Amino acid sequence: MYAVILAGGIGTRLWPRSRQATPKQMLDLIRPGTTMLQDTCERIRPLVPPEQVYIVAAEFYRALVHEQLLDMPPRNFLGEPSGRGTAPAIGLAAIHIRQNDPDAVMMVLPADHIVQDVEAYQRALAAAAAHARAGYLVTLGIQPRGPETGYGYIERGRLLPRADGGVAYRVARFVEKPDRPTAERFLASGRFYWNGGIFVCRARDMLAEIERLLPELARALAEVETALASGDAKETIARVWPGVPNITIDYGVMERAEHVAVVPLDAGWSDVGTWSSLSEVLPSDAAGNVVLQGDHVALETFGTVVYSHRPERVIATIGLHDFVIVDTGDALLICPKERAQDVKKVVDILKQHGRSALL
Amino acid sequence: MYAVILAGGIGTRLWPRSRQATPKQMLDLIRPGTTMLQDTCERIRPLVPPEQVYIVAAEFYRALVHEQLLDMPPRNFLGEPSGRGTAPAIGLAAIHIRQNDPDAVMMVLPADHIVQDVEAYQRALAAAAAHARAGYLVTLGIQPRGPETGYGYIERGRLLPRADGGVAYRVARFVEKPDRPTAERFLASGRFYWNGGIFVCRARDMLAEIERLLPELARALAEVETALASGDAKETIARVWPGVPNITIDYGVMERAEHVAVVPLDAGWSDVGTWSSLSEVLPSDAAGNVVLQGDHVALETFGTVVYSHRPERVIATIGLHDFVIVDTGDALLICPKERAQDVKKVVDILKQHGRSALL
Repeated sequence: MYAVILAGGIGTRLWPRSRQATPKQMLDLIRPGTTMLQDTCERIRPLVPPEQVYIVAAEFYRALVHEQLLDMPPRNFLGEPSGRGTAPAIGLAAIHIRQNDPDAVMMVLPADHIVQDVEAYQRALAAAAAHARAGYLVTLGIQPRGPETGYGYIERGRLLPRADGGVAYRVARFVEKPDRPTAERFLASGRFYWNGGIFVCRARDMLAEIERLLPELARALAEVETALASGDAKETIARVWPGVPNITIDYGVMERAEHVAVVPLDAGWSDVGTWSSLSEVLPSDAAGNVVLQGDHVALETFGTVVYSHRPERVIATIGLHDFVIVDTGDALLICPKERAQDVKKVVDILKQHGRSALL
Repeated sequence: MYAVILAGGIGTRLWPRSRQATPKQMLDLIRPGTTMLQDTCERIRPLVPPEQVYIVAAEFYRALVHEQLLDMPPRNFLGEPSGRGTAPAIGLAAIHIRQNDPDAVMMVLPADHIVQDVEAYQRALAAAAAHARAGYLVTLGIQPRGPETGYGYIERGRLLPRADGGVAYRVARFVEKPDRPTAERFLASGRFYWNGGIFVCRARDMLAEIERLLPELARALAEVETALASGDAKETIARVWPGVPNITIDYGVMERAEHVAVVPLDAGWSDVGTWSSLSEVLPSDAAGNVVLQGDHVALETFGTVVYSHRPERVIATIGLHDFVIVDTGDALLICPKERAQDVKKVVDILKQHGRSALL
């Protein structure tokens, strides 16, 4: 078993804590002292030895990733000159892994998710690996907790024969982010899962599908693979990457691939996409407030998430319901939780104003 | 003409900027670089020479007041060992003033109000002084801007003969803070004013009424006056003050005095009692936001007042309507404007928790 950890995102909606230089997966947002990237590696430790874990991220993050993952061999960091979506990132890892072991199964894991029931998560990954060994591209289907419109959905088809004890279904179809009534119908049907971007497959099956569906990417990867065989591929990657199509693995491969399966995952998963979803997975006090850090003096304040860069700082709130308050010293964010998606618009404005120190 | 400036308040509802050590009247809340106390003195400069201006405040504020009012003779600061309400403070100033000039007219002015139309304010004070010379205790009646329940009201009676050109009425009655329907009736009648706590009278008339209505206070003041005649009264004040009744001039004298008049004032007055009322008298941008200091990045934010102790700090807000955001470094306050009165409850909590550095 191999693992590919995708650590390329910025986590814009978690601004002002998440920044280009320190994106959310490299912050200790959830557990003081441990980053989400470290947690992601820790969770798969019983399944994959550290030398078989690859990290794909912008070249820019090389030093930071090494600092956070001391037992990872340096050559396992696969730096991209620029982000081209998940399909090229996964393809790049797949050629490295196939080179080591032509039959290798790889798990593809975003670095910025959290999972509360780690054992259930490991069981689902093991089941997915068993089906991957039977030739499937397997996606984990997150048991939906509500009719969320912010996720893609996966509809399951017929049950597959159990391979080594794991429940899996054929994928009937992938659905892009639905509107609210559609999401409600999905939930009521009981046949739909959230697409959490977690995949398990043999490296060679993924590369075969890339060859079939994304020939342009396949050609670029072939050049990298040739360079790899003769040593370092860094220069080749730098040369071919700007011409690689910018495309996600869902859109580019999974939605059109043959032999796609889904293994259900009900393990307290969250993609921690926004301050609102982050606060949902953390313990709250009797009033439903989540105080990440800071001295919160709350008057009739409910369901509010509070973070201050200085623990001793008083944050006094009166009459707030379901708010987000995040203070990093150089910036302070205040919004209702229902507007947490729009934090990226603030970042866009700062970009337009050339406030690069805040990005 | 003499002036007595009452500078004893704390301005708790303007926490976290207003603190015991630096109460609102000694802060540059309104105009950068100028405090409300300085503004109060500046506004009456054409009417009263600096050596005839007395400041009454807690002894504790002596140094700060001198620092802010460099042209005030040191002996014009009348320090109270403890605050006993406005009646003792005004009585204390009155005996100092009567000693200088038995016929002196004194204006009593809170240090923590703002006035936008200074000329109209000076005209009203001059008119009030003319009626004071005719033996009236004159109060300025603020033209009400709405059915506020946070102020006392003054009902006017018959028009007085014009003394030196100023319109004035007999006071029919003083009314304590009314409920909303009552305030609406008051406003509709056109006969009511807000009680802004601004009085003009002869020192001896005020002292005569104190003698008649508050004999206990009168006895204490007589002791101070005797001590004054023989030099310094500081020790006498320290001795008698703890036994002086704690009472306001409205309740103790004005509501029960004879010959009470009201001179209307329509001059953009505000007592700047809360962050909400403060923001009402300051210029706002097109969205109705008042940015006192800080780099406000506003997304769909309206009617919100923002202050950051650091001007370059970004305060990003999304979807806020009529909020108060005040950041002093050691503390951050966030509340809807309609809860601005409750800021004092936050201060009470901090007091209970022994957070004296924040008070």
